[in-house]
Amino acid sequence: MQTLDQTVVKHHGKRALERCQSLAGISEMDGAILRQYLTPEHKRCNQLVAIWMEEAGMDTWQDEVGNQWGCLASDNPGAKRLVIGSHLDTVPNAGAFDGILGVLLAIELADIAHQQGINLPFHLDIVGFCDEEGTRFATTLIGSKALAGNFDPGWLDLTDVNGVSMSEALTAFGLSPEDVGNARLPKDDVFGYLEVHIEQGPVLEAADQALGVVSAIAGAKRAVIEFIGQSDHAGTTPMDMRKDTTVAAAELTIAIEQIAKQCQHNEVATVGYINAKPGVANVISGYSAVSLDARAQSDDDLELLLYKISRTAKAIASERQLELSWQWTHEAETVACDTKFQQQLLAACHANGEDSPVLTSGAGHDAMAIAPICPVGMLFIRSPGGISHHPAESVIPEDVEKALAVMYSAISSID
Amino acid sequence: MQTLDQTVVKHHGKRALERCQSLAGISEMDGAILRQYLTPEHKRCNQLVAIWMEEAGMDTWQDEVGNQWGCLASDNPGAKRLVIGSHLDTVPNAGAFDGILGVLLAIELADIAHQQGINLPFHLDIVGFCDEEGTRFATTLIGSKALAGNFDPGWLDLTDVNGVSMSEALTAFGLSPEDVGNARLPKDDVFGYLEVHIEQGPVLEAADQALGVVSAIAGAKRAVIEFIGQSDHAGTTPMDMRKDTTVAAAELTIAIEQIAKQCQHNEVATVGYINAKPGVANVISGYSAVSLDARAQSDDDLELLLYKISRTAKAIASERQLELSWQWTHEAETVACDTKFQQQLLAACHANGEDSPVLTSGAGHDAMAIAPICPVGMLFIRSPGGISHHPAESVIPEDVEKALAVMYSAISSID
Repeated sequence: MQTLDQTVVKHHGKRALERCQSLAGISEMDGAILRQYLTPEHKRCNQLVAIWMEEAGMDTWQDEVGNQWGCLASDNPGAKRLVIGSHLDTVPNAGAFDGILGVLLAIELADIAHQQGINLPFHLDIVGFCDEEGTRFATTLIGSKALAGNFDPGWLDLTDVNGVSMSEALTAFGLSPEDVGNARLPKDDVFGYLEVHIEQGPVLEAADQALGVVSAIAGAKRAVIEFIGQSDHAGTTPMDMRKDTTVAAAELTIAIEQIAKQCQHNEVATVGYINAKPGVANVISGYSAVSLDARAQSDDDLELLLYKISRTAKAIASERQLELSWQWTHEAETVACDTKFQQQLLAACHANGEDSPVLTSGAGHDAMAIAPICPVGMLFIRSPGGISHHPAESVIPEDVEKALAVMYSAISSID
Repeated sequence: MQTLDQTVVKHHGKRALERCQSLAGISEMDGAILRQYLTPEHKRCNQLVAIWMEEAGMDTWQDEVGNQWGCLASDNPGAKRLVIGSHLDTVPNAGAFDGILGVLLAIELADIAHQQGINLPFHLDIVGFCDEEGTRFATTLIGSKALAGNFDPGWLDLTDVNGVSMSEALTAFGLSPEDVGNARLPKDDVFGYLEVHIEQGPVLEAADQALGVVSAIAGAKRAVIEFIGQSDHAGTTPMDMRKDTTVAAAELTIAIEQIAKQCQHNEVATVGYINAKPGVANVISGYSAVSLDARAQSDDDLELLLYKISRTAKAIASERQLELSWQWTHEAETVACDTKFQQQLLAACHANGEDSPVLTSGAGHDAMAIAPICPVGMLFIRSPGGISHHPAESVIPEDVEKALAVMYSAISSID
């Protein structure tokens, strides 16, 4: 397994971070970062990224949905393609690294290979996805889903806060709404997809590790669980004659935490809010809704977690003689990362002196949308404080250098 | 102890209920009951009540704050006064009996005494309070507080939803803002205050009893208890690295219920809402506020209850490493009903074949505001379903007759 010279690593790691700051300057907001799909800033970002790709010896193009591509071609014209990428769009008031860093590290890798005159046994494709965050239109992962052939034509009618439809925005951007489906990647051409991303969580920092290899992107399900009881006067209704739904909601909230904590495979479950009605201090609430967000690294684990929560909710409702209603609001299946990619990334970590752990991604990523068409692998970089989607989002420069070195070693081991 | 003939009871009980329906027709809302302080409906209501009082042989007058009075004078001009009353105003979309029934039953009592030519050893004063609910201006018990000399001149500047101040409304009603203080009752004139009121709770119904004697009007305190933790990504933050305030709020909610249930003197404590921020499904909430409404039949009981809750809140915050903040939003001291009045009312119940229980009032009443100037006593009438402040509010006619008979016996026993 090949490793990079430290001088090369330092130079390219530094440049990737500088370029993150350059892209942060292309923003719709004054003094804060926002870059949405199909905006002038999206276009300027793609243009600058294309220049950097070309400087790295790559052929470049923008696809039908607005993703920016670069290709470092193999001398073997019949070679298959390895895609490395992440997203170039941001949430409002974002940090500089979420998504962006993964694209810019990939360009540094291509530049190193180009400078070293290496003839890779595969075409190295780099993609900067146009939309992962879903900030402008009410749907996420637009760029990567289009690649996997999962662009829903119904999305063309979605509108942004100004009433502009995606269809109109595509046209204004210079793209053609009827051609978006052509962004689909021919399945047989691509043998794998790799993505480097900041962790956006506290696990690597707590483990004192720069990098982590992702085993799976957690499946997630969201529900609203409603208890219906009876609103009564808080002063005149004795404690033993109440049908108080807020107490039931509280019992379920405690139970959800306990059940998730007792799980063995890093399952998480969260109550983000309890919505009581009428919701005033001196009235016992006759209705309470509990939000549930549950994630696990396998669909079996998720189903077991949800079964336990559902059983507990039923028991609470029965014990308190309340009605229970359960509405699903979101569902994403677990995506397992390719075992061979995991092994190659771990071996590359070890070859570079890193004792990196294997961890689950609790957040969604483009790799999730690409998984239906090819094996995917992901490398996480430590997020100081676990902070992301915030101006205080950061990375440690040495961690970025390590990620670059590990990716170089990993790619060199792929045949 | 004297008891009434059943024919008399039936006649007067029936008329009191018919008059409740007549007053229900004097409403600011079409097809629903609303009668607020200092409105034309308040004036029409007082006028009609005054006519009924005069038919019962009483001298009538309206006092400086807008309460309607009637007096059945004793032959002894130096006799002291017994006041019987309740309120004539309503909440929006009210029932026909809350407050009103207490005033109209008192008028029937006066009418019976008048018809029987009884010379009472005290002047029997009946008062229909102008405002107990506080529906129009942001303060309650205006009429009874004015009687006790506790009308706050600052209230004159309070405005209703249309921007009309209480001062302007008094003038428009034909009263004089500067004279409101004169509604104060000379303390030495009055030896007691009695009030008949619907229970507005489920206790008597559950006990299968028509009537109950009130031992105390529960003191109440309200607070907002805030937990401050840290907002984090619901997917990427492991269960053991969270500072989730909603779970803390849920623990406190359960504890509040358990603590109140373990109390020995009918204490009640209620969480009406939990307000989590940011309050979205996929973010761990870094802030949660819990509303607390706690009531007890003595101030010592209330303090003990609140001490236990406060201690638990601190333990939860400490265990979960959260900040805790406690804001008081409302406070009303417990008002004990006069022991002698309780005994007289209980004896009157027994004399009329009623095995009435003694119970605490969880809701506030005019008697609470009168207590600073004289002993008070209250008789509760069963509320079917515990329903009040709702068009479905009702009473059982036989219960009303029993209340009338019991009040007659009780008054006849007062010397």
